[in-house]
Amino acid sequence: MKADVVIIGCGPAGLQAGIHSSRRNADTVIVGKLKNSALYGAHIENYFGPSEKTDGSVLLKNGLERALSFGCRHIDQNVIGASRFEGGFRIAVESGEEIDCMAVVIATGISRTKLGIPGEKEFLGKGVSYCAECDCNFYKGLKVAVIGDESGAAASAELMTGYASVVYWVSEKMSADKNLIDKAEAAGVKIIAGKPAEIRGGNAVGSLLLAGGTEIAVDGIFIELGGRSSADLAMDLGVMPEADDSIGTDRKCETSVAGVFACGDITGGPWQLAKAVGEGAVAGINAAGRARGTP
Amino acid sequence: MKADVVIIGCGPAGLQAGIHSSRRNADTVIVGKLKNSALYGAHIENYFGPSEKTDGSVLLKNGLERALSFGCRHIDQNVIGASRFEGGFRIAVESGEEIDCMAVVIATGISRTKLGIPGEKEFLGKGVSYCAECDCNFYKGLKVAVIGDESGAAASAELMTGYASVVYWVSEKMSADKNLIDKAEAAGVKIIAGKPAEIRGGNAVGSLLLAGGTEIAVDGIFIELGGRSSADLAMDLGVMPEADDSIGTDRKCETSVAGVFACGDITGGPWQLAKAVGEGAVAGINAAGRARGTP
Repeated sequence: MKADVVIIGCGPAGLQAGIHSSRRNADTVIVGKLKNSALYGAHIENYFGPSEKTDGSVLLKNGLERALSFGCRHIDQNVIGASRFEGGFRIAVESGEEIDCMAVVIATGISRTKLGIPGEKEFLGKGVSYCAECDCNFYKGLKVAVIGDESGAAASAELMTGYASVVYWVSEKMSADKNLIDKAEAAGVKIIAGKPAEIRGGNAVGSLLLAGGTEIAVDGIFIELGGRSSADLAMDLGVMPEADDSIGTDRKCETSVAGVFACGDITGGPWQLAKAVGEGAVAGINAAGRARGTP
Repeated sequence: MKADVVIIGCGPAGLQAGIHSSRRNADTVIVGKLKNSALYGAHIENYFGPSEKTDGSVLLKNGLERALSFGCRHIDQNVIGASRFEGGFRIAVESGEEIDCMAVVIATGISRTKLGIPGEKEFLGKGVSYCAECDCNFYKGLKVAVIGDESGAAASAELMTGYASVVYWVSEKMSADKNLIDKAEAAGVKIIAGKPAEIRGGNAVGSLLLAGGTEIAVDGIFIELGGRSSADLAMDLGVMPEADDSIGTDRKCETSVAGVFACGDITGGPWQLAKAVGEGAVAGINAAGRARGTP
């Protein structure tokens, strides 16, 4: 199969890139599954556009519909490989099909590191969150635990003191910078050394059980273990990721390899819907221009 | 009056900045008029979120409502001055009131240069557009004229050949780069030397009258004379604009002056809703962090 532009990833960044690329008459294919987007299970209240809190799945379906309305194609599969050839790129999908194109947009997001304990999956979106920045406001006056060892967990715990009535920071290794630990404590965070064993509750999170048997009553649990992007695809295309596996881009959202663009969470924080969409627009416009040799 | 963060401008960039800044518990004031946003009279079909073509005014009202729901304040007036003092900034509004704050977000957009001929104002949104990039798709199979002398007009004329059945490029001075003129002609643009005198029509644009009496039948007119940002405010805050009056920022949307952020059209193209919103999120988060000394 041939295309002008292939977009890898079907979250908000990829879909906005698809809207702009296809609207500029570039023959555009988005490869990826809507349900793989971190937005899918989320409730969104902090995005310009909707009138009130909206399910991420609704936004994703609308976004895909918009892209398709401009002639964009969608392949509902994962990408399994990518390579360069003289004058173009080749993208391989699960079915075995290969797509040759002039420009690639990497919009694969990041994968949040999981705790891997019972209850984590069951209570996702029902008290379990991987993003204090995104969901802080839903826990006003409630009790929350932030789980993690590093500076990201420290920052989230401190942030949550502005919202929750009680903030526990549960850390096994407590390996964050001493300054950050002191800062969190000064802000009122209660630090608990321990290893999470199970998340319990009824319809929503009710408590966090630690190894050893301590059970902490909480309404929300923020798992802040960081995240990794799938930088393998970028490397296959000749783009060297940063130390944290994020992908560096210029103001056109183009990477160090001409014709390869990146947008959304994979380019680094803040991991926010609006940022992903904004970069998607820039990447889509410039990828289409690159592939078609137009302004 | 005191605040943590003052956002100057009430378009999509400013409102998204207000959503994020107030949601991070920064005491935030947005100063500006919704109706001054270029989005106000626009029809939007290329933005991730809404299910179909949506009026810009609806999006703006929703955005303001979102920001207010997080405690953001809104002053429905223009800013008339800005200055720095030790440890902060002072913003003056039309009523004479002054707001002292720790961080400023400049989101004042750009002002498109007008032709200043009869019919231009009357047919805005009814065939008259200042953005081929935004509105190209509404003119599929129709006849359009692009008006302007410089490279921006050349690019827009070439772009429109991918949509419209006939594209005229009307230029008085034809001062664009020779390469761009040749490229537009090669793409099928019909170049007309002349000075626009009046835009005519019934419910929508019907023709463009040139000085001398030639009347060209068209369905759409793209006025591509460029735009200027209101960089005066930025300069009052110590930020030197670029040659085109855009404001340079880093990845945090912070300008060369610590505590002064910029987002949206004022930071440069593409002048797209999604880009404005994305930068608004980044600016809002970082301005709140700066003002409150939080992560």
